[in-house]
Amino acid sequence: MATALGIDIGGTDLRVALVGDGGKVLSHARTATAASAGPEAVIAQIVALAGSLTSPAGASNPAGIGIGSPGPLDAERGLVQSPPTLAGWHDVPLAAIVADRLNLPTALDNDGHVAALGEWRYGAARSASTFAYVTISTGIGGGLVVDGRMLRGAGGRAGHVGHMVTTDAPLRCVCGNLGCWEAMASGTALARAARQAVAEAPDSLLARLAAERDVDGRLVGEAARAGDAVALALVEAEARSIAAGLTSLIHLISPQRIVIGGGLSALLDLMQPTIEAEVARRTMAVFHGVDIVAAELGPATGVIGAAALILAPDRATRFSPRTHNEKVSP
Amino acid sequence: MATALGIDIGGTDLRVALVGDGGKVLSHARTATAASAGPEAVIAQIVALAGSLTSPAGASNPAGIGIGSPGPLDAERGLVQSPPTLAGWHDVPLAAIVADRLNLPTALDNDGHVAALGEWRYGAARSASTFAYVTISTGIGGGLVVDGRMLRGAGGRAGHVGHMVTTDAPLRCVCGNLGCWEAMASGTALARAARQAVAEAPDSLLARLAAERDVDGRLVGEAARAGDAVALALVEAEARSIAAGLTSLIHLISPQRIVIGGGLSALLDLMQPTIEAEVARRTMAVFHGVDIVAAELGPATGVIGAAALILAPDRATRFSPRTHNEKVSP
Repeated sequence: MATALGIDIGGTDLRVALVGDGGKVLSHARTATAASAGPEAVIAQIVALAGSLTSPAGASNPAGIGIGSPGPLDAERGLVQSPPTLAGWHDVPLAAIVADRLNLPTALDNDGHVAALGEWRYGAARSASTFAYVTISTGIGGGLVVDGRMLRGAGGRAGHVGHMVTTDAPLRCVCGNLGCWEAMASGTALARAARQAVAEAPDSLLARLAAERDVDGRLVGEAARAGDAVALALVEAEARSIAAGLTSLIHLISPQRIVIGGGLSALLDLMQPTIEAEVARRTMAVFHGVDIVAAELGPATGVIGAAALILAPDRATRFSPRTHNEKVSP
Repeated sequence: MATALGIDIGGTDLRVALVGDGGKVLSHARTATAASAGPEAVIAQIVALAGSLTSPAGASNPAGIGIGSPGPLDAERGLVQSPPTLAGWHDVPLAAIVADRLNLPTALDNDGHVAALGEWRYGAARSASTFAYVTISTGIGGGLVVDGRMLRGAGGRAGHVGHMVTTDAPLRCVCGNLGCWEAMASGTALARAARQAVAEAPDSLLARLAAERDVDGRLVGEAARAGDAVALALVEAEARSIAAGLTSLIHLISPQRIVIGGGLSALLDLMQPTIEAEVARRTMAVFHGVDIVAAELGPATGVIGAAALILAPDRATRFSPRTHNEKVSP
């Protein structure tokens, strides 16, 4: 069985997995990302985690390594440029470094493209030639596949769906822009709206739950499922905000399907009727009927999609290890 | 010299041209589109105009016919579905009909894709592998080229850039949606704002010009160039509205260039400083420096781009004439 290593560098968690045919996770390891300690520390974590993986009987040696990293990055040059969630990273040639340290061909792409590739090859977008993958959690990211190809654009930066302008409300986004979809519809935006609702409705179930726990999308979902009117109104408003951005994406790429991942996808069943009604109301009739579905790969999307850069790539750029004579020790 | 016929079916004008290498118009003819008379009448106009073209010495017979038509249409099936600007057109197999009547292989695409193809092959996007073509006139349309390919999407409907959601102002778009970019930033939107400004500032130069002429983008531009403060404020607001949509497109496809066509591109020199400042303010730093330029092909964009479907196509679907034995007379 062909295998590859998948590495998912998150601002919170660092995950490494050995992935086999069909996107099956054969072995995995996770640690808290040393996000404030600079690139050398994180690279050392990657090498240590990869070394800790066991290989099941019958699995061949990994054919290579795929890495998903926060952007901005340059996939063609294998460079991580300056992700806001990783301190001290500036133009780090991560693909070449990891190729050398682990002595395997290595490919790099941003986390949105990698997750879209995972869902495309092994998940909810398997049969689609045109789809949008949208991950809604702290922020909103994603990847766009059109006519059977992942959009990359100049510098590989296509697919920053969270930074479409969708509102004139004075919502400041972490990117600095006003009115981004991310500022309006991310999990962070929902949590902000929920904290305000808690303050305004102290007798609601949501407020009672909030007395003991963090106010986030999960808590809103729990209160909504228990029938709390305040939480249900928050879910409804969130669904409408999500639909505004989906309307833009549908008119732009004419997808067969939209795949929703990230933490907030756990609320998709609650939001789906409103999202679908709102999208139908806001799109031209010829665009009606686009499937809106939840991502299938869950928290392993990142490592599975990263391994797909090797097992089932949509493009060719890989960085080879230098020969042992030239190799620089860690 | 290779040549092709280009046909541009507009809601107002019907244009037919013989186009040679390099997108050069060798001969052309134009008439008012019989837009309310149904498809047979327009097809008869096309046949008559094509017959009226003269071929210069040295030009070879046309290799085929390209048609640009208002959408929605299905390019793969050669069908014009139901354009709002053409009465009585429903699923008309226009490519096959024109192929038969003029006895030449025929390709069909929507007017936004066709104009983008023309600018890509012969105009302002010649060197670009990723760009957005945006035409701003009565409405807003366009075509998106990413990584060297025109985006088509399901049913060939990608690139409806005018129907991105860019505002929560209660602006009703002709498509039925609220808050479309087209409703906010088209020439129609500018004319509406100008009529209101004329009513509010009857002593302005704009109002004085408006006493004798239609209030439209051209009039606003003329008053602005003469220094009228009311007109300059309208141009400034229009530039900001345009920038909102461009911000979304830049984050989505990461273009090297944005090409602006349509009637309002005549005001681009007036709007450019504000558009560029606004786009710089609203996009992440890694996206700064995208060229924003005017289309180069002018009113002939449609016929030149249509001919490019034959002379320099980006995809293969053509409809061949049936043999003479089978041919149905007009």
